[in-house]
Amino acid sequence: MFDTVHGVRDLYPTRVGAEAALLYRKEDPVVYGRRNEGLLDQETLDSYEENGFLSVEELITPAELLGYQAELERLLTDEAIKRDERTVLEKDSGEVRSIFEVHKISEVIAGLVADERVVGRARQILGSDVYVHQSRINYKPGFKGKEFYWHSDFETWHAEDGMPRMRAVSISIALTDNHAYNGGLMIMPGSHKTFVSCVGETPADHYRESLREQEIGTPDPLSLAVLAEKHGIELFTGPAGSATMFDCNCMHGSNGNITPFARSNVFVVFNSVDNTCVAPYAAPGRRPDFVAARDFTPVK
Amino acid sequence: MFDTVHGVRDLYPTRVGAEAALLYRKEDPVVYGRRNEGLLDQETLDSYEENGFLSVEELITPAELLGYQAELERLLTDEAIKRDERTVLEKDSGEVRSIFEVHKISEVIAGLVADERVVGRARQILGSDVYVHQSRINYKPGFKGKEFYWHSDFETWHAEDGMPRMRAVSISIALTDNHAYNGGLMIMPGSHKTFVSCVGETPADHYRESLREQEIGTPDPLSLAVLAEKHGIELFTGPAGSATMFDCNCMHGSNGNITPFARSNVFVVFNSVDNTCVAPYAAPGRRPDFVAARDFTPVK
Repeated sequence: MFDTVHGVRDLYPTRVGAEAALLYRKEDPVVYGRRNEGLLDQETLDSYEENGFLSVEELITPAELLGYQAELERLLTDEAIKRDERTVLEKDSGEVRSIFEVHKISEVIAGLVADERVVGRARQILGSDVYVHQSRINYKPGFKGKEFYWHSDFETWHAEDGMPRMRAVSISIALTDNHAYNGGLMIMPGSHKTFVSCVGETPADHYRESLREQEIGTPDPLSLAVLAEKHGIELFTGPAGSATMFDCNCMHGSNGNITPFARSNVFVVFNSVDNTCVAPYAAPGRRPDFVAARDFTPVK
Repeated sequence: MFDTVHGVRDLYPTRVGAEAALLYRKEDPVVYGRRNEGLLDQETLDSYEENGFLSVEELITPAELLGYQAELERLLTDEAIKRDERTVLEKDSGEVRSIFEVHKISEVIAGLVADERVVGRARQILGSDVYVHQSRINYKPGFKGKEFYWHSDFETWHAEDGMPRMRAVSISIALTDNHAYNGGLMIMPGSHKTFVSCVGETPADHYRESLREQEIGTPDPLSLAVLAEKHGIELFTGPAGSATMFDCNCMHGSNGNITPFARSNVFVVFNSVDNTCVAPYAAPGRRPDFVAARDFTPVK
């Protein structure tokens, strides 16, 4: 589809047609880097290419973990942060659900983002310098933690943030144990090679609602059923301190959590400096900088 | 606590005090029967006594399963059944959530309930003849399946149905595969030996709401946190055709389900004929017969 705003052919049209569609990812590689360029070995890179994700069992040490947990506690209980526009509250309970741009709010988290174990792996996968497109802390409380419905992050970033191509990677660093039963991350392995074009136009200021509960830009049930039947579902479990990195186009989501065991993680999106954002592909205006950065300075 | 209505000391006061409380189950055994009296061996009975549940890997054969799945499909799509007062619909979507008294609606299900592999195990655990206190089919659709919050069935049956003592067992027979990620049954193992006394008075006709979404008679968060910390949480997975039997006082619940994989099961509660229901212990009136049977005829 030729995109008159950007003057290029749009490989990933979405929120423009009347029908949902499954499009194959033919032109964008998944892994750009090579084994000698970082911590990831060839086997891990190959598996990431095929499945769209990788896990790191102990990304940070137990001692470091204590420091990050203390920082999380501090951030969650800070009244000024609770009133900050970058903080998203749960629709029903008013509890903190996410704090955006957390690497600018917290020096501790900034240090984590710039840690070679984190940014180094992102650079290796993307084969270039990288910048932070988005960072946040997610907090899913016990008893009433809400689900995150299925979505491809890239679909949103392309439509609403103007990310041109699939050359970004997310890392989720667990600050609490992920059990099978407390609403952990689910990914459909291999789904990153299919782009689900969604229906519905993006309303203005859509992000205010969508950060609490996404409706526009959600895949249709038939596409989800096809992908789930083909790829199955992987549910991530692991101790606090472990991490999952996944491609920007992975179909993922998480169930709610009625257990008393809260879940929280640090979530960072690295985008290649060769893939910086332009005007949104399918939204009247772009989202605020704290959700979708316009500062493309590489993390060093 | 002396109960003036029943003229006895109530071992399990609930919905009467201003504070929640944890009471120990001291007088009611968990297992009444012995190994030579049925299909369950001593090891399984001992484990049931300790944990409050047992699993049967292949309760029904794959060939039998097909017949029950066809019957489920028939029941879910029957418009007359959808309008029947014994059918409960999802609050938001209007889809069927449960069909009560299903052993009276369906001869196929009646046959399953009276099967020695089902009722025989119940008789053995309870050490007496048994009758059906409640039967139903539960259907948890994919994509938008709602959670069932934590509860002890006995708390409700005692308060609202007048079940005097803990001498009942439930069986959940899976008609679809239970994965770790599609909202399966969770039990806190060993929690059946503690009774959580709940706060709040039961309003009249409470069952109409509570069958969709329970609020009164739900355990308080502190009690749940104590029990979960002490006992942990077991999430049941297994193929269609497998079954879980659990004590009436197990603390259990299930998370929502955003995956495309629906979950359904046949759920039957057997109560001992030596424990038949009297007047409710904490409700203005009793629930209808299709939710809480007053016909105590033993299953033969």
